[in-house]
Amino acid sequence: MKTVVIGIDIGGTNTVFGIVTRSGNVLVEGKIPTKGYTDVSEYIAKLSGKIKERLNAFENDVDLIGIGVGAPNGNIHTGNIEFAPNLDWKGVVPLSELLNSHFDVPVKITNDANAAALGEMKYGGAQKMNDFIFITLGTGLGSGIVSNGNIVYGHAGFAGEIGHTIAVRNGRLCGCGRRGCLETYASASGIVKTAREYLENDACQSSLRKYNSKELTSKQIYDEAKLGDPTALKIFDYTARILGQSLADSVAYTGPEAIFLFGGLAKAEDLLLVPTKQYMEQNLLSIYKNKVKILPSELKDGQAAVIGAAALIWSN
Amino acid sequence: MKTVVIGIDIGGTNTVFGIVTRSGNVLVEGKIPTKGYTDVSEYIAKLSGKIKERLNAFENDVDLIGIGVGAPNGNIHTGNIEFAPNLDWKGVVPLSELLNSHFDVPVKITNDANAAALGEMKYGGAQKMNDFIFITLGTGLGSGIVSNGNIVYGHAGFAGEIGHTIAVRNGRLCGCGRRGCLETYASASGIVKTAREYLENDACQSSLRKYNSKELTSKQIYDEAKLGDPTALKIFDYTARILGQSLADSVAYTGPEAIFLFGGLAKAEDLLLVPTKQYMEQNLLSIYKNKVKILPSELKDGQAAVIGAAALIWSN
Repeated sequence: MKTVVIGIDIGGTNTVFGIVTRSGNVLVEGKIPTKGYTDVSEYIAKLSGKIKERLNAFENDVDLIGIGVGAPNGNIHTGNIEFAPNLDWKGVVPLSELLNSHFDVPVKITNDANAAALGEMKYGGAQKMNDFIFITLGTGLGSGIVSNGNIVYGHAGFAGEIGHTIAVRNGRLCGCGRRGCLETYASASGIVKTAREYLENDACQSSLRKYNSKELTSKQIYDEAKLGDPTALKIFDYTARILGQSLADSVAYTGPEAIFLFGGLAKAEDLLLVPTKQYMEQNLLSIYKNKVKILPSELKDGQAAVIGAAALIWSN
Repeated sequence: MKTVVIGIDIGGTNTVFGIVTRSGNVLVEGKIPTKGYTDVSEYIAKLSGKIKERLNAFENDVDLIGIGVGAPNGNIHTGNIEFAPNLDWKGVVPLSELLNSHFDVPVKITNDANAAALGEMKYGGAQKMNDFIFITLGTGLGSGIVSNGNIVYGHAGFAGEIGHTIAVRNGRLCGCGRRGCLETYASASGIVKTAREYLENDACQSSLRKYNSKELTSKQIYDEAKLGDPTALKIFDYTARILGQSLADSVAYTGPEAIFLFGGLAKAEDLLLVPTKQYMEQNLLSIYKNKVKILPSELKDGQAAVIGAAALIWSN
């Protein structure tokens, strides 16, 4: 009989889960919409039913020993989702408790970036590292910090929000209501904002002008940069500069061995990863220079959050 | 027989040591100049002689079990002092090794702010805390970060340098060679710089004008602020704003339960501690609001570094 863990990734739109072995192998996956359940108990009942269906398909071949969950504002200390702006359920949702009414195994929850950082440590490029930072460059910028081999959860359970440190004082308005957060610059949506600013304020010719500015995507900017469009190249350079400057501060905080970048933008190696490293080096205090790697995550795009969530259990 | 530890605080000018009990009681102290020894072995021989003299005074009443050292750029991983700008010995100084040639006990070394943070955790206001930040407001700004009950040393041993995160992009020139470091604003020397700027650029009347601008001290600015001088009050308010803004970022990094302020300026409760807390709250991401205390350190001024250094051994 195989010992397994359920890894659950609760996103704003969909919830993905997987049955995950100790070695990080995802035996089977499943998915339900996150939206459409005003009552969270209904959502949990639906999700639990779907998970049990998948477990039952293994008949008695698997032994479930725990459930790990990555969710926006998931709090490891309380087992709750607390005031998540992107979810339909407001206030405090006792997620662990609700899952425990369907499964008699330990349930652990944290946010998706922390879960993915655990995944990187257990199954990815950080397997021999005790101190590193994991950054997801998606629509926003999420981060998980590992220090002395442990996730930095902080007293209230919500540490490691590098995306909401201030990169530019009084800068761009962020979804959080404040101004200048790093994620308004270094993220897929940030890079699009930068493009719109460049295209509006610059009279330059640019192949980006062929797109409808309102529908512009980071992928299009990437493609045009790859083809050598000077404006698109400047946009990536600016993004790398802001990110590199902020990461120099991150190094001063927790002194990582490496900073892992994850997500679509992280694949822009020459355009983003390499210049980010250069800007970071330029901005580092001298004792940190040439000591910190910036690396692409070794986790698979689709599975990072699920195996990361599973790692919450497997790492114990 | 009493079990004891030697705590050593190596400063740029003087080295202070103490014989410290498990409960943090300093039985006796001693001091030698740090400057004046071009050969570090001579310095260590002198220091060791002095320590042995004090130990011998106890005859066989004490049992030495370890030596803890707080020193600029002290590296817990290597036992070395590495490239400390304020000391006469350049490059890498194998401090633990050198002390071990005089004492056959474990030697541990870190920087003074980390040592003091350990002191706060073992003997001060952070005794029940697993996540906090300790900040010394002296000539510069030093910091020690505790996460999950452990000092954040980082991979290379030099994490926790909040004083060298950028508070103002392209701001004041820092001793480290970069611009805008927090310690150029929030420190005794920073507050004096702010005063000079205000007095030069403002035509305002101020009782600070009675001092020679070149010899102005933070204590004088404090005294005039206490007497109600509007310029001195503005200087403190500006310092609190810069510090509060940066601490809001610190909270996003490691989610502390409290931030302890230590040093002369930390005593300026109404003038600095209270407004720093207000500015920090204004700048916090909403999930952190009203969750983080700013507290004065409970360590005694003269002993913090020595008992902190001793705590390196006692905390094990």
